Amino acid sequence: METNYLCGFLDSFIKISAIIFAFMKVNGKHYRTIWMEGHQVKMIHQNKLPFNFEIFESENYKETCHAIKTMIVRGAGAIGAAAGFAMAQACLEAKRLSDYVEYIRKARTAIEATRPTAQNLFYAVNAVFDAGLHSAEKAVERAQELADENAREMKLIGEEGNKLIPQKMNIATHCNAGWLAFVDYGSALAPVYEACRYGKEVLVYVDETRPRNQGARLTAWELEQEHIPHAVIADNANAWLMSQGKIDMMITGADRIAANGDVANKIGTLEKAIVAKAFGVPFYVAAPLSTFDFECASGKEILIEHRNPEEVLWMEGPDKNSHFHRIRTGNPGSQALNPAFDVTPAHYISGIITKTGVIKPHPAAIMQLKEFL
Amino acid sequence: METNYLCGFLDSFIKISAIIFAFMKVNGKHYRTIWMEGHQVKMIHQNKLPFNFEIFESENYKETCHAIKTMIVRGAGAIGAAAGFAMAQACLEAKRLSDYVEYIRKARTAIEATRPTAQNLFYAVNAVFDAGLHSAEKAVERAQELADENAREMKLIGEEGNKLIPQKMNIATHCNAGWLAFVDYGSALAPVYEACRYGKEVLVYVDETRPRNQGARLTAWELEQEHIPHAVIADNANAWLMSQGKIDMMITGADRIAANGDVANKIGTLEKAIVAKAFGVPFYVAAPLSTFDFECASGKEILIEHRNPEEVLWMEGPDKNSHFHRIRTGNPGSQALNPAFDVTPAHYISGIITKTGVIKPHPAAIMQLKEFL
Repeated sequence: METNYLCGFLDSFIKISAIIFAFMKVNGKHYRTIWMEGHQVKMIHQNKLPFNFEIFESENYKETCHAIKTMIVRGAGAIGAAAGFAMAQACLEAKRLSDYVEYIRKARTAIEATRPTAQNLFYAVNAVFDAGLHSAEKAVERAQELADENAREMKLIGEEGNKLIPQKMNIATHCNAGWLAFVDYGSALAPVYEACRYGKEVLVYVDETRPRNQGARLTAWELEQEHIPHAVIADNANAWLMSQGKIDMMITGADRIAANGDVANKIGTLEKAIVAKAFGVPFYVAAPLSTFDFECASGKEILIEHRNPEEVLWMEGPDKNSHFHRIRTGNPGSQALNPAFDVTPAHYISGIITKTGVIKPHPAAIMQLKEFL
Repeated sequence: METNYLCGFLDSFIKISAIIFAFMKVNGKHYRTIWMEGHQVKMIHQNKLPFNFEIFESENYKETCHAIKTMIVRGAGAIGAAAGFAMAQACLEAKRLSDYVEYIRKARTAIEATRPTAQNLFYAVNAVFDAGLHSAEKAVERAQELADENAREMKLIGEEGNKLIPQKMNIATHCNAGWLAFVDYGSALAPVYEACRYGKEVLVYVDETRPRNQGARLTAWELEQEHIPHAVIADNANAWLMSQGKIDMMITGADRIAANGDVANKIGTLEKAIVAKAFGVPFYVAAPLSTFDFECASGKEILIEHRNPEEVLWMEGPDKNSHFHRIRTGNPGSQALNPAFDVTPAHYISGIITKTGVIKPHPAAIMQLKEFL
């Protein structure tokens, strides 16, 4: 009886929150990046984008783990939500079992092993696990809350960032920090979406973002779905466009922000921040509070991952008949080096857009954010 | 009799010059980018590189025109040599005709129409045409001289640039300004080749150079042929590698250098020059004298060509079975912007490597080069 009541409450809650927080559209229809329906976790299959739009349906926590591991779902916020939902699935599965706690404890370990460096994942898994110790329904409720909180925070980032955007503006962005990387809205793109809802004229220059082309593939796709004018550019073109006065502002996301305001993000972010400063173009970083690492004194402490050089040397995509091929991008006899991230020193950053407002990338301003955690 | 003597002389001349000036190797064998044998013009088929090494043999001036137009031969210096050889071919063809002058005049117009913006092309065609007014043999001789002069100038650039390179150095380069772009040696890569001949330890970071990947394809291939250690990197990675002290110097070529030292070159050059300055990494440009436009007061006067956006949106290459495919690089519904060149203001450039030495990118130093024309 209590369970039914709770489910009814949850259903209403999900419906209401979907109305309030799920504004991002695909082919004109509202979608979140990831959501839970009954025991199923549903998510946009990001490995298929932008060439195919498919919803991946996970029947149990192991399938959700697989989805995280194989990057069917990717991006800090979206991974966090997926991990929370996976934990909730495990609790539902354990309900009929005698060893409930044992089952969900094993599940927690398995979920944590999917992407061991994703900060948000651990927070979500543990919060939902703790709720699951009370009941499976509490776990579902907590996972849902976390996803909603993510969407709500990104909406606030959009509102704060929108204050920086005048009636007409050209904005450049690097990589994908749109709603696909979160539950909804995104970080770097949230201000753009918000500005467009206010009827502002925004043109977005989308860095291709080699070697994985998240800009040309995911950001461009998101912007097309929202009917926002945009142009994909080679990563080489930012400085020239800035020198010609074509870019008024740049916004990127962040993978990790140190206590002194240094920002680790997709390779190329540092390069863009430096050229932006050279041309007096404001360079903003947008991020949820979970991206701040208060224990990390400066960017020097951040280890940069080198990924497989094959990402530079090969590229996969469809031909004009939608047949997929993997082709060489360069000389077969050559090797490549593939640093995946870089660190932008705080002094290149004009401000960090958070849910509490735009802050300066200074230690004191960052420490104040702790109050809002 | 006179003709036979001349041919004998030319044969010896070609052989000697080949020994002196043709050091660049393919599979261990010496090649120039383009050369003339009898009435034939032979050239490395650059559209097939780096996946296939083929020599394109042109039987007459019209075939050579076709080769220039379709970029079988490309790069400022190589185009100049090709145009000179095409003019010489036309003179040989006209020898048996009653309307010799009429034939070579028509040929000149046709050759000039192949790449109407290539500065070197006009110089070479006219020089060989004037020689051709004396005799077809003089035309062949003059075309050969021009090619040799090109090779000799690039060799001198290599020697001058080598003086900047200590016993061990990591050098980054953008696009292809190697020997494929000239008759031999190249501009930006000539100092690297020279340094390696002196036994110096050079590691070259090769910018992929999106959207056409001339770095990953041509520069990487050239360096492999010369057994020079190198790593292809995404264009996004320069700043990060510089911040980590991995790049000691950067050298690029130039498409046009204004009288004040501003440099037009492949898109991305400006971005690299700015980040190099930010990290105190010396940024050099290497170029033959024909690249200087003494009539062009500053980079502001240089018009930047926008190329087909398809170059950003599609990529062609072989799969692992060497079957070629053309695949989409990004979202099918998005447009792209494709500025092909940019202009780097003189104050970002540490020096310009010329055959007369390394000069500062200042008007006075550039004007002094006129003496050597």
